[in-house]
Amino acid sequence: MKDLISVRQLNKEKFFEIYEIFKYYKKRYLNGETKFSDLRGYSIVLPFFENSTRTRTSFELAGKILGADTINISASASSVKKGENLYDTIKTLEAMQFDFIVMRHYMSGASKIVADKVKSHVINAGDGANEHPTQALLDAFTILEKKGSLEGLKIAIIGDILHSRVARSDIFLFKMLGANITLCGPKTLLPRCLSSFDVDNITTDINEALMDKDVVIFLRIQLERQNKVFFSTLNEYSIKYGLNQERINLIRKDGIIMHPGPVNRGVEINSELVYGDRTVILEQVKNGLFTRMAVYRFLLNG
Amino acid sequence: MKDLISVRQLNKEKFFEIYEIFKYYKKRYLNGETKFSDLRGYSIVLPFFENSTRTRTSFELAGKILGADTINISASASSVKKGENLYDTIKTLEAMQFDFIVMRHYMSGASKIVADKVKSHVINAGDGANEHPTQALLDAFTILEKKGSLEGLKIAIIGDILHSRVARSDIFLFKMLGANITLCGPKTLLPRCLSSFDVDNITTDINEALMDKDVVIFLRIQLERQNKVFFSTLNEYSIKYGLNQERINLIRKDGIIMHPGPVNRGVEINSELVYGDRTVILEQVKNGLFTRMAVYRFLLNG
Amino acid sequence: MKDLISVRQLNKEKFFEIYEIFKYYKKRYLNGETKFSDLRGYSIVLPFFENSTRTRTSFELAGKILGADTINISASASSVKKGENLYDTIKTLEAMQFDFIVMRHYMSGASKIVADKVKSHVINAGDGANEHPTQALLDAFTILEKKGSLEGLKIAIIGDILHSRVARSDIFLFKMLGANITLCGPKTLLPRCLSSFDVDNITTDINEALMDKDVVIFLRIQLERQNKVFFSTLNEYSIKYGLNQERINLIRKDGIIMHPGPVNRGVEINSELVYGDRTVILEQVKNGLFTRMAVYRFLLNG
Repeated sequence: MKDLISVRQLNKEKFFEIYEIFKYYKKRYLNGETKFSDLRGYSIVLPFFENSTRTRTSFELAGKILGADTINISASASSVKKGENLYDTIKTLEAMQFDFIVMRHYMSGASKIVADKVKSHVINAGDGANEHPTQALLDAFTILEKKGSLEGLKIAIIGDILHSRVARSDIFLFKMLGANITLCGPKTLLPRCLSSFDVDNITTDINEALMDKDVVIFLRIQLERQNKVFFSTLNEYSIKYGLNQERINLIRKDGIIMHPGPVNRGVEINSELVYGDRTVILEQVKNGLFTRMAVYRFLLNG
Repeated sequence: MKDLISVRQLNKEKFFEIYEIFKYYKKRYLNGETKFSDLRGYSIVLPFFENSTRTRTSFELAGKILGADTINISASASSVKKGENLYDTIKTLEAMQFDFIVMRHYMSGASKIVADKVKSHVINAGDGANEHPTQALLDAFTILEKKGSLEGLKIAIIGDILHSRVARSDIFLFKMLGANITLCGPKTLLPRCLSSFDVDNITTDINEALMDKDVVIFLRIQLERQNKVFFSTLNEYSIKYGLNQERINLIRKDGIIMHPGPVNRGVEINSELVYGDRTVILEQVKNGLFTRMAVYRFLLNG
Repeated sequence: MKDLISVRQLNKEKFFEIYEIFKYYKKRYLNGETKFSDLRGYSIVLPFFENSTRTRTSFELAGKILGADTINISASASSVKKGENLYDTIKTLEAMQFDFIVMRHYMSGASKIVADKVKSHVINAGDGANEHPTQALLDAFTILEKKGSLEGLKIAIIGDILHSRVARSDIFLFKMLGANITLCGPKTLLPRCLSSFDVDNITTDINEALMDKDVVIFLRIQLERQNKVFFSTLNEYSIKYGLNQERINLIRKDGIIMHPGPVNRGVEINSELVYGDRTVILEQVKNGLFTRMAVYRFLLNG
């Protein structure tokens, strides 16, 4: 495996191989070994054609901790403004001898298109509404740490399923790992039928969705990626689909609450619950660092 | 001391402890030891919610020289645009395992609010019109190098006192170190009474302010932070409060002239005097580097 | 030699000295030695007052591979917005102890003006329509690798000669190395007479320009730097001066085709020819990395 473009590239063997590397780095780092030389002499470039703080920072820090040289390219400062096409940008970065190209692009399929054309390792850090594989990996690892396995686990994903690359990557990966998945959201933000996603249940009823779940994932309302009105107001969305104290009781007593961040406080999750004892949102961020370290190393191993 | 938010956290003992580290690094660096490993394995993130070149660059270079990994987050490229709140941004950076958070924010008190909530060391690189503690430290160190002590030293601060975080931090620190302080500027930019700042003299008369001073600090006119008209024109300001050759003679013969930069040439200081033999403006910049190295190390020592 | 501002600073001896260092780094790097410590303890700042991806990235990566600390300053985030003048910006960077200042500026002569005033090494990464010396060096090195020598080589430069810093640097350097140079483009984009540039031929006829050439360099149409209409439409330019399959046959059978990038596909070069077997565009990018490594080292050697 040269690239990580989609979680569909992963079977259980590969997934657990990455998980082992993740655990290795996490354990060592938290024991005080905060600098490695595994990627010394390797270079990482991060062309981000959409704004991002957390994903870019997480990938960049993960690279630096492993000893790599990292260089950012933001859309606003880049030759994109000169009208250079994506393929030429990536071929140029390959010619500059970058070992890793970590890219985010507003177009679904963008990273796949370029990955096949260059020798550099390409990591998809989000492509349009398509996939965000390292987010799915860090979500899965966080669940594994809490629950031991995803086999038979009841997981609900709440929100804008249609426009969410996180939802797509999560669904593919969690199903491969044996989870039972319920999707929930306003009708306009849900797939029309079960067959369009390989899930177990689709509902517009938040109470039904939360009931007896081991894991509930609230998605961020991505106002910036919607060009139609899919629901009337944020306030109405919150009332119908937001997490509040009452609804938390529907989830299993040992169930965990996740969110890819940043949370729209008071929309997806009531403000006082964001860092409550049931949420693992900051644990997801923390695991994101070690997940990216593991992905670099996994791709390097070939 | 986990954080450096305000110079009011410093007593003389702590101040001189930082000064010793400053002298240690400066001496070694200027003797050719330009790379250290004191911060190897530590990571620094620099979320700057206001534009800055010199302060951000100084902090970033100081970190790199000490061997730390550094990552920039500029307001324009960040999740701020997604409407994430400051607290969540900082909690996320803590979860990413950053050891130091060097932040600048347009809101007074911003860094204090978050410092108490995270385990990372937080350094205030400027918060609204409140404080800029490393600027005050580098100013004090520059004065110490030239004058040996601040005890009894006559210092004038000229300009927009009310909106200046540099003025506030300088005043608190210099008074603690025993200096005699005169504030001077247009009435609209001065505190109304002596009691609002613990200073020795407040005047609108530039000649009185300069007379017989050991140190004169000209503040930058921060047009970008003023939302009212506090003086008629820049030209009038320059005529009334700008430094020219005639006024320089009012200052003590061995008196020094300082400015936090960047100078509005011809406004605060006449253009031909900016790098004259009385000014120590570039020495301040140079000392800024070693000051930030010292602050990292001081906070790490606990 | 403290600075690299213009290729006119180079005689053959200096040029070939840089070429030797270039070959040394390229050979070692491609043999797997991808990290050096030649610039360990040195710091590089890259103030770019014009947007750039490839040049900035190439200089930054070259510095990191050699072990230097690098810091970016983009025009948009910088004190330029505060109205600081260029001289003060550069003096400040010198005071921060930067060893190298790699600068791009929209004003011709900008880097020369500041280089004489600071002790730091200044490298001109493009100044207005004046010069881009490292581009000329990497072009010359690419030609040398393919042709062994520039002595007597027939080289054509096609496009906007008047506004191109690449053309100017290429012409000066290639003539010094003994090449025979033809310039070609629309009349409005050509110098009026041979005497204004020391070249061998000036023509508006693309067929005459390509005929029997060893090297043909297509320049990027820099729409962003033109404030008048120099040709009617991009389509007409392409028809009259763009490279197509038919025109490629006019060039010598072993002739090579170059472009500084990014290519406006379908304007200067037909899309399907961009990475054809006659073009060395990506080889130029690759050599750019080793060229910048060599320039750092060359200036350090003094």
